[in-house]
Amino acid sequence: MVAQKIVVQKESHRGVHFRRAGPREKVYFTSEEVRACIVTCGGLCPGINTVLREIVCGLNYMYGVDDILGIQGGYRGFYSKNTIKLTPKVVNDIHKRGGTFLQTSRGGHDTNKIVDNIQDRGINQVYIIGGDGTQKGAAAIYKEVEKRGLRVAVAGIPKTIDNDIAVIDKSFGFDTAVEEAQRAINAAHVEVESVENGVGIVKLMGRYSGFIAMHATLASRDVDCCLIPESPFYLEGQGGLFEFVEQRLKENGHIVIVLAEGAGQDYVAQSMHAVDEKDASGNRLLLDSGLWLTQKIKDHFTNVQKMAINMKYIDPTYMIRAIPSNASDNIYCTLLAQSAVHGAMAGYTGFTVGPVNSRHAYIPISCVTETQNTVKLTDRMWARLLASTNQPSFVQKCELVQERVNKQTIDEINNMRITSI
Amino acid sequence: MVAQKIVVQKESHRGVHFRRAGPREKVYFTSEEVRACIVTCGGLCPGINTVLREIVCGLNYMYGVDDILGIQGGYRGFYSKNTIKLTPKVVNDIHKRGGTFLQTSRGGHDTNKIVDNIQDRGINQVYIIGGDGTQKGAAAIYKEVEKRGLRVAVAGIPKTIDNDIAVIDKSFGFDTAVEEAQRAINAAHVEVESVENGVGIVKLMGRYSGFIAMHATLASRDVDCCLIPESPFYLEGQGGLFEFVEQRLKENGHIVIVLAEGAGQDYVAQSMHAVDEKDASGNRLLLDSGLWLTQKIKDHFTNVQKMAINMKYIDPTYMIRAIPSNASDNIYCTLLAQSAVHGAMAGYTGFTVGPVNSRHAYIPISCVTETQNTVKLTDRMWARLLASTNQPSFVQKCELVQERVNKQTIDEINNMRITSI
Amino acid sequence: MVAQKIVVQKESHRGVHFRRAGPREKVYFTSEEVRACIVTCGGLCPGINTVLREIVCGLNYMYGVDDILGIQGGYRGFYSKNTIKLTPKVVNDIHKRGGTFLQTSRGGHDTNKIVDNIQDRGINQVYIIGGDGTQKGAAAIYKEVEKRGLRVAVAGIPKTIDNDIAVIDKSFGFDTAVEEAQRAINAAHVEVESVENGVGIVKLMGRYSGFIAMHATLASRDVDCCLIPESPFYLEGQGGLFEFVEQRLKENGHIVIVLAEGAGQDYVAQSMHAVDEKDASGNRLLLDSGLWLTQKIKDHFTNVQKMAINMKYIDPTYMIRAIPSNASDNIYCTLLAQSAVHGAMAGYTGFTVGPVNSRHAYIPISCVTETQNTVKLTDRMWARLLASTNQPSFVQKCELVQERVNKQTIDEINNMRITSI
Amino acid sequence: MVAQKIVVQKESHRGVHFRRAGPREKVYFTSEEVRACIVTCGGLCPGINTVLREIVCGLNYMYGVDDILGIQGGYRGFYSKNTIKLTPKVVNDIHKRGGTFLQTSRGGHDTNKIVDNIQDRGINQVYIIGGDGTQKGAAAIYKEVEKRGLRVAVAGIPKTIDNDIAVIDKSFGFDTAVEEAQRAINAAHVEVESVENGVGIVKLMGRYSGFIAMHATLASRDVDCCLIPESPFYLEGQGGLFEFVEQRLKENGHIVIVLAEGAGQDYVAQSMHAVDEKDASGNRLLLDSGLWLTQKIKDHFTNVQKMAINMKYIDPTYMIRAIPSNASDNIYCTLLAQSAVHGAMAGYTGFTVGPVNSRHAYIPISCVTETQNTVKLTDRMWARLLASTNQPSFVQKCELVQERVNKQTIDEINNMRITSI
Repeated sequence: MVAQKIVVQKESHRGVHFRRAGPREKVYFTSEEVRACIVTCGGLCPGINTVLREIVCGLNYMYGVDDILGIQGGYRGFYSKNTIKLTPKVVNDIHKRGGTFLQTSRGGHDTNKIVDNIQDRGINQVYIIGGDGTQKGAAAIYKEVEKRGLRVAVAGIPKTIDNDIAVIDKSFGFDTAVEEAQRAINAAHVEVESVENGVGIVKLMGRYSGFIAMHATLASRDVDCCLIPESPFYLEGQGGLFEFVEQRLKENGHIVIVLAEGAGQDYVAQSMHAVDEKDASGNRLLLDSGLWLTQKIKDHFTNVQKMAINMKYIDPTYMIRAIPSNASDNIYCTLLAQSAVHGAMAGYTGFTVGPVNSRHAYIPISCVTETQNTVKLTDRMWARLLASTNQPSFVQKCELVQERVNKQTIDEINNMRITSI
Repeated sequence: MVAQKIVVQKESHRGVHFRRAGPREKVYFTSEEVRACIVTCGGLCPGINTVLREIVCGLNYMYGVDDILGIQGGYRGFYSKNTIKLTPKVVNDIHKRGGTFLQTSRGGHDTNKIVDNIQDRGINQVYIIGGDGTQKGAAAIYKEVEKRGLRVAVAGIPKTIDNDIAVIDKSFGFDTAVEEAQRAINAAHVEVESVENGVGIVKLMGRYSGFIAMHATLASRDVDCCLIPESPFYLEGQGGLFEFVEQRLKENGHIVIVLAEGAGQDYVAQSMHAVDEKDASGNRLLLDSGLWLTQKIKDHFTNVQKMAINMKYIDPTYMIRAIPSNASDNIYCTLLAQSAVHGAMAGYTGFTVGPVNSRHAYIPISCVTETQNTVKLTDRMWARLLASTNQPSFVQKCELVQERVNKQTIDEINNMRITSI
Repeated sequence: MVAQKIVVQKESHRGVHFRRAGPREKVYFTSEEVRACIVTCGGLCPGINTVLREIVCGLNYMYGVDDILGIQGGYRGFYSKNTIKLTPKVVNDIHKRGGTFLQTSRGGHDTNKIVDNIQDRGINQVYIIGGDGTQKGAAAIYKEVEKRGLRVAVAGIPKTIDNDIAVIDKSFGFDTAVEEAQRAINAAHVEVESVENGVGIVKLMGRYSGFIAMHATLASRDVDCCLIPESPFYLEGQGGLFEFVEQRLKENGHIVIVLAEGAGQDYVAQSMHAVDEKDASGNRLLLDSGLWLTQKIKDHFTNVQKMAINMKYIDPTYMIRAIPSNASDNIYCTLLAQSAVHGAMAGYTGFTVGPVNSRHAYIPISCVTETQNTVKLTDRMWARLLASTNQPSFVQKCELVQERVNKQTIDEINNMRITSI
Repeated sequence: MVAQKIVVQKESHRGVHFRRAGPREKVYFTSEEVRACIVTCGGLCPGINTVLREIVCGLNYMYGVDDILGIQGGYRGFYSKNTIKLTPKVVNDIHKRGGTFLQTSRGGHDTNKIVDNIQDRGINQVYIIGGDGTQKGAAAIYKEVEKRGLRVAVAGIPKTIDNDIAVIDKSFGFDTAVEEAQRAINAAHVEVESVENGVGIVKLMGRYSGFIAMHATLASRDVDCCLIPESPFYLEGQGGLFEFVEQRLKENGHIVIVLAEGAGQDYVAQSMHAVDEKDASGNRLLLDSGLWLTQKIKDHFTNVQKMAINMKYIDPTYMIRAIPSNASDNIYCTLLAQSAVHGAMAGYTGFTVGPVNSRHAYIPISCVTETQNTVKLTDRMWARLLASTNQPSFVQKCELVQERVNKQTIDEINNMRITSI
């Protein structure tokens, strides 16, 4: 096996380099000998079915491969007797529906049992679509496959609606999620505009990173405040969220807040602790940062400010996750799938695929699982968001910090040269 | 004033009769003397802005009326100094957005203050868009106006997304709500199809009537069970919901339940009571029948059945309420508004408008507030739903009852003569 | 066979009566003996797949029928050897896509060959989904079946996106078409609003009846003029279309015209004749009333008025026909299919199904093919449209006529009693 | 004025460099002295209103500018007395509608009169949103302004739905157009799947470049053949389009062709020539490549092949152009507008804005008008399209060429190093 091919090249002074994805002159497998399988793991994300479809169509149309198995229900499906035969005809229309044609599950990973199963079935190409945990599982499978000296290509296609996968530019389904999130934000905006002192809260996906919340906010132009896990915030006192809410209610009569699900988790955990002693069954409510914030704001204005407000809380998570991918994600999913197929057919293994600085590349699985992609608060996008919402920075000594950030940004601009195409 | 014109005609052997809505030969007000106002009250519903727009355009285009005031923020707005001048130009595009251009609120009704205000402002046509409570308020205003001998036409346009207004065939926004509910049902279906033992619950509007839930279920073809306030259900034991859920999970691997918000309130209240003693702050959670049912099913399968299930709960309420009305509702809202304008201009007062047996009519306000429209369990629509979902009837001695219903249906058919056009 | 059951009952003083659709106490066929087939003919219309799905599911779920054949490609498919076995599983998702799962074609009707084929295959229930011509074919099949004394139920489900089928209240797909037409009207409106002297023309379906154009116009509120086959119009001179276009351009800077495809065909034919002599290949252009009108308006303003205008012509026909049915049509299609299944299972034959005065009924096929449903110019809907667009009536002695119409309307109102529910 | 700031830096061995867009330490204008104007020219494109809104909001929120004029109706509007005052409130919701709030027109450019007008009105910032011709006009205005020594910043925001602007990565509205084009392609696909020998043709925007057609094809997965201006094609004989159509009809029973409006113009021109001699009025028809191709295919199969085919031609151009921008384009338009504002406030002039290799930059106007962006046939995207449609390459000695392309691609991959982030 040619796994070494995709090992990271040694770092030059210009950074780490990966091999570019695409067809190779030498194909490692003949069409007849390929027996591929595909598995989808973790939560739903728009585009899984497009990736699935294009792996099948890519293997069949580009390389004449006929023997493709669908493993059903995530990693667990490897232990099951049932698989589904995948052909271009079977998958022809699946990109038009949301969800995953192969079903999915979380966890259920037993490396040895899975590799035994791969051996028993005579599989020599394994395509694994899934998030961070799933990719770690894929890395383990790859290592076990290497250890046993099997001639099996293991290819990961990173999936995370949150866009929190390191190294690659963007994860599939993200664009669709941001687009669909607009519906919820619009609904919140219409609701709060139609009442007095309307406070709309929309909770969006993002456990550890606020990309969806940030992009959805920038796209909408109707959001007053965006809270993400990377930027701590506080509720009370000067520069706090309550103050900002009150101010916007006075100015405009309403406010829309977009909240990533992971925002303010420390805060929520603290509240939880207090309640925990009294009522264990209340946990669910309090772990949900959206419900928690809704309650906090309501309590504050009702009890402290003695001010009647109209809370409108929307959690569109499932309605976003379950839709089919849009045109832009369809193209992206097609490229990912074709890259994966070219890579596996060329004999690469232990790799994932994705665009790095706009170019599709082969990346060792370990590279994408080592760290997580998060919103950089010193980044231009976050600066643009702050400029556009004019929300508080929630930084105590914010002036000093901000000054430094600004200075750095300007230096960066003055020193930066942008290469034309 | 000619209020008597719309009083219900004495009942004949063929039922109560109302006057047909439409333009009248004799117009009671001259264009110049009309000073109209419009107010919107209660929760949002698709189409409010279309009704608003068409009252303004109808008054202006059909009768040359120029003096139209928007009362802002519901009944409360009558006490405020601010009103907004409404012209065809101002309202030209508002039917393309959701919500209400005039803002809304609940309650805030003080009949005397409102009528004082009507007098002070010299208003002689009052258009009131709102639900049950609002229409009761409109009836009170009408009576006070009569008492004072004012020359003021009071016209109500009944608004309820739940379709629970008596006498009229259908309320505006209902079609749009059923259409938009499909998104949530689709999302639930995609989610549960993509996992093992997926249980999707979608809560739809309907405090006292299950029309939205029933129609959304019939339209979707993906729903396994529909629970509405009119049809009591039980969870445990033979013929109960848990049994049905288990059965569908075994057959299909997933189930989608649509629940009207008012379904099973007795049940929820019982559970609430138990918890109430321990934790007052838990009320909110438990009053929500959707969260309650989600929890109940989860507990049952986890603890009793020792079976892992995947719960997906979706509450699309705000996302449905806040969208603009669809084409069908736009036409309907236009007819309602034009009827109201024709009626007020003809000097009718104390009336609401709406289609009765497919014909638009003027109806005394009291008629629509006396009773509430609910799903008849012996009706064909509910029978069609049961036939299509094959869900349990939740009737203990269901065989006997069902037999009677069937017999009645058949008799009805055999005896019925349908008049051709 | 019990065909007589659905024969029209003799006319009473209250009109022609049909039997109400629904389940019957006595079922004529046993589940085991049924061998049903379904065929779809003519042009596309939203909802065909829902009707298809629900006939299959209805036969299977309500009556335990397993043997259902799909005849592919319209009537022609009867001569082909290939059929497709239809099961609830096969048709489970087809209502989510447009078009027809069974393919369709026009014409190809040979009664004898079709009935031979029905006999040869042992089919005893024939479901025929199609328009006017198709239903005439169904009537011929029914007669030949009777003549041969076969025990075969023939059920027609009338399909016409134009809503031009007589007797029944509305045809399926109509609501969806009106909804989807809004996109084209919106696009035309945006285009003409963004330029100087913008003239937008949207051609909608409607060969002999203008229902889609009329409803789409009423729903949009952005249309200045609606031209339908039932209402002749003229272009030049006083009260003509050119004058109206010029007037609106002066007032608003733009105008949107909605045109049913059959509007002004005499006019188009005349123009055609003239051009015909010069250039035979030009026919296609001129037969299209939308392109014809676009050209006429452009020529008039460019050559006669010496006025620069911006023409924007949109023909959304295929984009409307090909979409899946909306929620409202899905419910309607379900009722039609269930009615057809109940009728055929009860042994009725030679019937079509559809709502008559809001009640689903069985109607002899011949009744729906005898005449065509058209927009009545004296009807309220058309009056409402005229009131809302304020377009010219295109009637030379329009004052006199209009007066009569108005008078009649008012008399009608005063004499009419509306029965409450 | 500091125009020299944005002049291209001298070419280094690593290419041409531009200055990065963003806020600058030194602001050239004070808030009070700024008098800005905005003008929109050329055809519609999704996102114009978002750019408009964000220039106004950016000037106001980020720099406190209050004096912003809207020039109405394109360049011509400069000669008119009327302008519209633009404030954040006025433009607050315009990004939710298509078209341009300021109206647009083509041509009408008289540099001297425009600059006179700029002087007369005391305008010192000019924002010009428009395509290639418009940007050339902007360059002329900039030069005249410089010549007269005026203290006026001229900023261009390049607009072209076709994505054919050189230097920048992508033009705004492109994503939305590709997304919306899916509707037309879906409709065509549904139509042709539902009949025998269905041939669907969808004409998309793209006079000189096929980006929309290429991306829409890749996104859809339902397109069999994509024809663009950059890739000549021929109809008859071996390897021609007719042969391919026939082959797909035999294999699948239907075919969907996506055609950029500029594809095959030489061909169309030839046909035109022939007809030109006979009938001048036929030009319009024949200049439309979509109608031309539809006719050609119909004639060939009817007359030469004696084969009945079902042609379905869809031209969704106006329906695509007129929609509001999607979330992704909204973000993009916001960045463009903010960049333009930062640039003008910093005293740059004669520049356009746009991302170059993913980084937003200031680009001298002349750079973007010198050449045009076109699809490179040796590029990966086109290769991916060919791989996915498997359509003919329409190259006579295609084997040789293709070999070279493939070799080059592989060399490129092997030599390429991708810099990680």
